[in-house]
Amino acid sequence: MKAKVTVTLKQGVLDPQGQAIQNALSGLGYEGVENVRQGKVIELDLAETDTSVAQTAVEKMCEDLLANTVIETYDVELSE
Amino acid sequence: MKAKVTVTLKQGVLDPQGQAIQNALSGLGYEGVENVRQGKVIELDLAETDTSVAQTAVEKMCEDLLANTVIETYDVELSE
Repeated sequence: MKAKVTVTLKQGVLDPQGQAIQNALSGLGYEGVENVRQGKVIELDLAETDTSVAQTAVEKMCEDLLANTVIETYDVELSE
Repeated sequence: MKAKVTVTLKQGVLDPQGQAIQNALSGLGYEGVENVRQGKVIELDLAETDTSVAQTAVEKMCEDLLANTVIETYDVELSE
């Protein structure tokens, strides 16, 4: 089973990387880019085959290691 | 219109960040994590409202700036 974890900064948390991308796009002549946020995506291959067990395990991994829940939120998507 | 760009390393390109995450999860006692790959997700708010124009523009941004197409692939998802 595969898990795709998307970790993004919470609303209201400053995102200097996103700001840098927005400035760079503007410098390259791309107009109409109003806001940019950058996050991480982590793809895990799991031995577990039960969806609900895998969901619980991956959420615990996020809380423990993958996301800093003070400033970040995470989203877990499972697929076969 | 919002665009979500996911940039991941191509298959076969070494991913030390993913390897570090896998080792850390193993050290924390998580078993059954067979492979980990880390990538980036970039969320753009665009002024453009036409889907096909936006798709073309974002793909060009990926080629120019957001992804290093020598070692990375990108995927664009658009939503209202």
